[in-house]
Amino acid sequence: MGVVVSLEEARDPGKGLQPLLDLVSADMQGINRLILDKAVSDVELIPELAHHLIDSGGKRLRPMLTLAAAKLTGFQGDEHIRVAAAVEFMHTATLLHDDVVDESDFRRGRKSARMIWGNQASVLVGDFLLGQAFRMLVDVGSLQVLRILSNAAAVIAEGEVMQLSAAKNLATTEDEYLAIVNAKTAALFLGAAESGGALAKRPADELSALRCYGKNLGIAFQLIDDALDYSGDSKNLGKAVGDDFREGKVTLPVILAFRRGNEDERAFWQRTIGAGEINDGDLEHAVALISKHNAISATNERARSYGTVARDAMEIFKDGKEKRAMQDVIAFCISRAH
Amino acid sequence: MGVVVSLEEARDPGKGLQPLLDLVSADMQGINRLILDKAVSDVELIPELAHHLIDSGGKRLRPMLTLAAAKLTGFQGDEHIRVAAAVEFMHTATLLHDDVVDESDFRRGRKSARMIWGNQASVLVGDFLLGQAFRMLVDVGSLQVLRILSNAAAVIAEGEVMQLSAAKNLATTEDEYLAIVNAKTAALFLGAAESGGALAKRPADELSALRCYGKNLGIAFQLIDDALDYSGDSKNLGKAVGDDFREGKVTLPVILAFRRGNEDERAFWQRTIGAGEINDGDLEHAVALISKHNAISATNERARSYGTVARDAMEIFKDGKEKRAMQDVIAFCISRAH
Repeated sequence: MGVVVSLEEARDPGKGLQPLLDLVSADMQGINRLILDKAVSDVELIPELAHHLIDSGGKRLRPMLTLAAAKLTGFQGDEHIRVAAAVEFMHTATLLHDDVVDESDFRRGRKSARMIWGNQASVLVGDFLLGQAFRMLVDVGSLQVLRILSNAAAVIAEGEVMQLSAAKNLATTEDEYLAIVNAKTAALFLGAAESGGALAKRPADELSALRCYGKNLGIAFQLIDDALDYSGDSKNLGKAVGDDFREGKVTLPVILAFRRGNEDERAFWQRTIGAGEINDGDLEHAVALISKHNAISATNERARSYGTVARDAMEIFKDGKEKRAMQDVIAFCISRAH
Repeated sequence: MGVVVSLEEARDPGKGLQPLLDLVSADMQGINRLILDKAVSDVELIPELAHHLIDSGGKRLRPMLTLAAAKLTGFQGDEHIRVAAAVEFMHTATLLHDDVVDESDFRRGRKSARMIWGNQASVLVGDFLLGQAFRMLVDVGSLQVLRILSNAAAVIAEGEVMQLSAAKNLATTEDEYLAIVNAKTAALFLGAAESGGALAKRPADELSALRCYGKNLGIAFQLIDDALDYSGDSKNLGKAVGDDFREGKVTLPVILAFRRGNEDERAFWQRTIGAGEINDGDLEHAVALISKHNAISATNERARSYGTVARDAMEIFKDGKEKRAMQDVIAFCISRAH
């Protein structure tokens, strides 16, 4: 009864997120209730600040991956909802700490929590949400899921430190950049997908497939995100184009434009990203250099390539709406690029 | 064969920490090895920063409580070492984040990590250590211990947020202050002690006793700490007398001096702690007011009272060197007051 979907159709960015949204919509209501419930504290500031982020219209991509992977692997039960909510809390905690570390003023088109409540509260509420995430996971009681997601927590932090160390350093290679992306972003995508299958107690080959899918999807997602920072539309993006530039982040578009550039251009990158000396017009010049060297299309091309790996990783699963929805998400993530 | 120890002797602050140190010295070597091992990362900054704190000569009181409780309850195995190391990592993560939140320049008499590596790295390495703590706990594989310590993690963060909300607020009552102390300090002492008994799979009454011991010891410890901030000796304390004053923390000595003070005195507290307007001589005046109203001795007296509760909680255990060592620690914590 499997519906045959042509590669063209599956790649149609128009479908994108919708099949996944349809697949998990009932469970997402459960997650939203649980999130409201677990962001509660007698300490007023905690729900206030937590809701600022929770209600800010993130797509909840990561918990949806957990739900979809649980459905894909035939999990019976409702623990996948708690695991998915924990994944979202881990992500939210990371965002809070990231904004402090990056000194970001905006997040998803709204003032960042640190701009409203300060860095101090953002650090501590992030810690609280991480603690709540582990509490929820302990409630679920699967040591395997706890292992997967405690690994993710440590690796994400490692990735953020790596990123901090690489900041302003134009000697960063593409491989070093990929190691950062793997840790800071792909690790949670990987953990989100794998934990769904782990709940269903699936054999190692299926868990490996979910890991491969999550990791490569996560890398593709981050590459597109980094490309959008030099090519996107601030309004839809919810963050200002040029944030990475101003923060001195050495992302792939910069790595490529720097390496492909001439001496004058490299001096420009050293002055701006390297030394943080940014004047009017520099962002526009950066965008022009990145465009001149096709660094956005090269970044997007690499993202598509990781997307293909993610897609192929899913092939061992039998066809069905779960598998197709998870594959369509890849097209959605990549179609964010304009 | 139990040695009878008179109450006088047990209260002798001279013994203090030594019986506990003797009890756990072999295990502490294991912990130190494990800590070195788990603070390792390919990301150079992580071990560098982590070691700054780990090697800074903290007493490792909390992990010692886990070891002692495991021995007290007859635990056979070596998982208590990993649990204790995880407790120390949780504590270290808290210190890193605390210093960022409090903007502290010193910790244990050395420059704080954030002064050397910056706030950003301190936040992220704290996250990493917390992630590593949970990884270690997952390795141990006791869901009960995971529950105890994930609760502690969330509650500690809640307590820190409460403290942030109460900062500069002289309307804070003694009860509100105690709720903060319970959460930010006593929760980890409680978790450290209980998890030792939980490893040994002891019945509920013994775990309750360990919780009661840990919690009340933690409160006593924090009360003395808060008293020392207005009465201690910076050199031995490793922090400057007056840190809490400068940070606008409303601790018990201040709560008592404020409530017992006259209108002029309350205006002084409002200007300094409340409004953060601190001039030369204000710290000395604060110390004088606290002394005038016997707020240090009242704080120490309350600490002793919590210490008595902790001591009594241990009475259900049969006499032996483990029990005596754990009771002697109470005297040690209280004897830190001069």
